[in-house]
Amino acid sequence: MLQKPEAAELKVIAFDVFGTVVDWHGGIAAEAERMIPGVDGSAFALAWRAGYQPAMRGVMARIAEGEGGFTLLDELHRSILETVLRDFSITHLDAAQKRELNCAWHRLPAWPDAVAGLTRLKSKYIICSLSNGNIGLLTEMAKNAGLPWDCVLSAEVFKAYKPDPRTYLGVAAVFDTTPGQVMLAAAHHDDLAAARACGLRTGYIERPFEFGPGQPKDVSPQPDNTLHARDIGALADLLGC
Amino acid sequence: MLQKPEAAELKVIAFDVFGTVVDWHGGIAAEAERMIPGVDGSAFALAWRAGYQPAMRGVMARIAEGEGGFTLLDELHRSILETVLRDFSITHLDAAQKRELNCAWHRLPAWPDAVAGLTRLKSKYIICSLSNGNIGLLTEMAKNAGLPWDCVLSAEVFKAYKPDPRTYLGVAAVFDTTPGQVMLAAAHHDDLAAARACGLRTGYIERPFEFGPGQPKDVSPQPDNTLHARDIGALADLLGC
Repeated sequence: MLQKPEAAELKVIAFDVFGTVVDWHGGIAAEAERMIPGVDGSAFALAWRAGYQPAMRGVMARIAEGEGGFTLLDELHRSILETVLRDFSITHLDAAQKRELNCAWHRLPAWPDAVAGLTRLKSKYIICSLSNGNIGLLTEMAKNAGLPWDCVLSAEVFKAYKPDPRTYLGVAAVFDTTPGQVMLAAAHHDDLAAARACGLRTGYIERPFEFGPGQPKDVSPQPDNTLHARDIGALADLLGC
Repeated sequence: MLQKPEAAELKVIAFDVFGTVVDWHGGIAAEAERMIPGVDGSAFALAWRAGYQPAMRGVMARIAEGEGGFTLLDELHRSILETVLRDFSITHLDAAQKRELNCAWHRLPAWPDAVAGLTRLKSKYIICSLSNGNIGLLTEMAKNAGLPWDCVLSAEVFKAYKPDPRTYLGVAAVFDTTPGQVMLAAAHHDDLAAARACGLRTGYIERPFEFGPGQPKDVSPQPDNTLHARDIGALADLLGC
């Protein structure tokens, strides 16, 4: 648990979203099965998500080489979807159906503890997203799922994807705080490590079934994180909200 | 009133904030009088606000000439404050007090109809700010005043101030809509005219006492606006929320 003097200084909690606040695996699997009868929804969701890291790295490399501008996650998802459909030999979706399926990322369900936990944290801290999702995606998701963000922050605001330091330090700049007055809450140790390297505090959120009920992931505590919480409600407990 | 087919297509209502949603004159006057006993709060507020348009134009001119980056409104306010304090011969405030006074813009009170009206509109549309205020300022203001934005959009996101077309068209881009699916709601005809030139719909909100109870402003309808509403509740009425 945070010592009281430090806790008094914490001002902002920025949340990773996909996997931490919402269940991308369950949401995408269900929407894929609804739109593509007979598909293995879990495998489809895992394949779609697997294209995400390489696609982002490609964009950032092109930007670094001066060969491209920032690309919204909606566009990356749409492009990865083409590959996944081809790999799954799904050929019957028209453009409108592909567009609707791509918007499944806007309709992901919140983990059951998320709305109540965020609402408690909001009473004491500024709570915002810090996601590689674009602003429109995150806003529609929040509206759908009832996520009570004070503010939607996104890679789109900083024109860089996590784990680029501009994203973590960007949150502190937006709220005119020191990096240590911001906590990143996430279910991913690599995201938290990058935030920690920028001076942010870190709160790990266990999401053992992020990749589906059939593939539990290791959620053991890592000592470098400031806090370790079973879920967002438990984070609110630890922070005295 | 909007015809039904058009009304069905409207997706996003972006609000100007200072004067339209919150009462900058009343808020700044009260905070100035609290921190500077004996000052004419109304005159102080008017002087501070009067520095705002020239300061923004200065930033945009420097950016256009390649001589400067985007500047947050908090910084412009802080710089204008120095001039106003000098003009009012106020010399006793220390740096911490000036900083606190500058944050009065983060604590502006909502007009009495704003929270209820926005909440009604939110049930049917995406509602966001579109203000020259920076994200941190707008987020703290919303938290303080209970403004239920789906998303805080700001000049800071688009790196341009209104009336630059990048701001109005930026809203449509963020939500992947046509400009005509976005309405700007504002108490200022020049802001609305610039939005209209970009293809947005426009809703004028009467705020006769924006400049204080002693200086009522002309709030007569102008026929070019899509809608004309007494306040935000009346806008919700017109849009059937």
